[in-house]
Amino acid sequence: MAVSSAFSAASVIRSDVDRELSSFCASHRGHLLEVGEELAPAMDSLEAMVSGGKRLRPTFAHWGWRGAGGAAGDERMVRAAASLEFLQACALIHDDVIDNSDTRRGQPATHKRMAELHADRGWNGGSEEFGRGAAILIGDLCLAWSDEMYQASGFAPETLREGRAPFDAMRTEVMAGQYLDTLEQVRGTASREAALRVMRYKTAKYTVERPLHLGAALAGRHEELAGVYTAYGIPLGIAFQLRDDVLGVFGDPSTTGKPAGDDLREGKRTLVVAETLARSGPADAERFRNLLGAPDLAVDSVEWMCGLIESSGALAACESMISEYTGQALDALESPELDEAARGPLGELVVAATRRSH
Amino acid sequence: MAVSSAFSAASVIRSDVDRELSSFCASHRGHLLEVGEELAPAMDSLEAMVSGGKRLRPTFAHWGWRGAGGAAGDERMVRAAASLEFLQACALIHDDVIDNSDTRRGQPATHKRMAELHADRGWNGGSEEFGRGAAILIGDLCLAWSDEMYQASGFAPETLREGRAPFDAMRTEVMAGQYLDTLEQVRGTASREAALRVMRYKTAKYTVERPLHLGAALAGRHEELAGVYTAYGIPLGIAFQLRDDVLGVFGDPSTTGKPAGDDLREGKRTLVVAETLARSGPADAERFRNLLGAPDLAVDSVEWMCGLIESSGALAACESMISEYTGQALDALESPELDEAARGPLGELVVAATRRSH
Repeated sequence: MAVSSAFSAASVIRSDVDRELSSFCASHRGHLLEVGEELAPAMDSLEAMVSGGKRLRPTFAHWGWRGAGGAAGDERMVRAAASLEFLQACALIHDDVIDNSDTRRGQPATHKRMAELHADRGWNGGSEEFGRGAAILIGDLCLAWSDEMYQASGFAPETLREGRAPFDAMRTEVMAGQYLDTLEQVRGTASREAALRVMRYKTAKYTVERPLHLGAALAGRHEELAGVYTAYGIPLGIAFQLRDDVLGVFGDPSTTGKPAGDDLREGKRTLVVAETLARSGPADAERFRNLLGAPDLAVDSVEWMCGLIESSGALAACESMISEYTGQALDALESPELDEAARGPLGELVVAATRRSH
Repeated sequence: MAVSSAFSAASVIRSDVDRELSSFCASHRGHLLEVGEELAPAMDSLEAMVSGGKRLRPTFAHWGWRGAGGAAGDERMVRAAASLEFLQACALIHDDVIDNSDTRRGQPATHKRMAELHADRGWNGGSEEFGRGAAILIGDLCLAWSDEMYQASGFAPETLREGRAPFDAMRTEVMAGQYLDTLEQVRGTASREAALRVMRYKTAKYTVERPLHLGAALAGRHEELAGVYTAYGIPLGIAFQLRDDVLGVFGDPSTTGKPAGDDLREGKRTLVVAETLARSGPADAERFRNLLGAPDLAVDSVEWMCGLIESSGALAACESMISEYTGQALDALESPELDEAARGPLGELVVAATRRSH
């Protein structure tokens, strides 16, 4: 999901989040190395994953808190928000194992890094198997630490308890959404409904709605703001994901970090794909379906597919959905329940995340 | 690890733990199926893993609580103890993926179950890859739910906070221990020190010491009892694991659930193996090392290996260590800090877990 790094509503807590994650990692590196010094490369891989990224979930948790009247610069909130990055690190590390992806944010994926370590040292057995096993465990550690960091954020235990409902729901939903995504790939469904459901759970609830709910709950105003944040978060999350999917087909590799057509090569069952199949004649649809996910997809095939996405009207339909969902998200910000401090930044986030280029 | 099911100190909370896990799963099945009905088979696989096992960690957590003066029959403690079973389910599901093991407790491993589902339905792509991906996500769900169940056990938030130190340490240590175990396999170390370190983290701290600490912390007496429980738990855990390792080589398949020689076929770097290598001449050691981990290990090779384990004196050395560690664990129970209610059961657990047959 693409949010410009120069963007103020997103960058306002980024350096604080980075600092808290570094400090947590430093203390936990000590605990790990006490168990065994050989854990250092695993900890290095973990930190490499945790130190990158756009901090979207912490950003929404932060503005969820501010929109519910929470004070600016509260260190407890920074830590609770930062804890979501460990969950995200787990999700990415495990996703890359599941999808057998080689890279993440332009760097080798965790299982690749660990496989390289195995190969460099000349250890026994398969490097790929070792890398995969190590990445599973590093992801598990991230998941456990997410929760540990949340509970140790410094909020009173009763306050933390208020936040558990969104915190817990977020974890169940992202894993369920990821499972459904995997399922759609192997079933080859490619229906609009299936694509929308995955977007709803894997992106809209996980990235936007639940972090906002968490911020509101920690500020003690979940009940008043849950509806507003849902009305803002679900359409925004879907618009976000749609923009990402369009960029994954047409986007500039220098800004999205992946080559154009990459999503087509990976065979992702996005809404862009579902719209294209639903709007094309049987022969075109069949050819598109057969090309989708072919690992050696030729440049001219990618071009033909991009052409069909446009000529079928799928691209225009997706752009129109992005506009509509964007409008819904902005409308939700009119709610009088929302603290004035957050209205502008939450609006900025809508614009930044859904515009055509970055 | 082998503890007889007829055993009273272990069985005292087993049915309570089963009931709480069932009830948690029932309510969470609802949440999952709301996301998508296709999640039912994943939930079935999850419950199959959670419904089995000896409940060792809840048992030690329970007696840790009773030994610290906690009341019998406290439902909050049952739930907090039961939450450890979700962590254990995650560890087993992910271990089976990492080791590519086909079975668990005589049933198909989770990734195998999910691969069978894929094959039965005739979905696209590889069944093995799907099974592995699904099992990673199901394990993640178990890990998230472990923490969710702990926090929702019903103890006051301040009390739960007291328990977080052992709860958190347990999770980091088991993952670190599992990583070191994987590392020892690929490095082919097979030193006594390496084997003992893995036993310390993967079994002694994870299965015995930290659950006892958790019980004591929830009873508000962690400071007074931590030392006693460490003095009891570490040697007991190592004796447990040693007994398990001996049974993994010589044991009766009907009671251990795996064929004799299975650990030799898997190439596990146990202390039994380390002792054998350290006590054998270079030619025997080399032959043993070469046979260890061969997947098609012939029956007569297993017999030769078992013979060397005995003739080298490794078996006797391990039996003598079991006795010594057992004695240390029993000695620790003399502490006046320990509540009388737990002394007998904790002693029974030592005897049941370290005796020669079951």
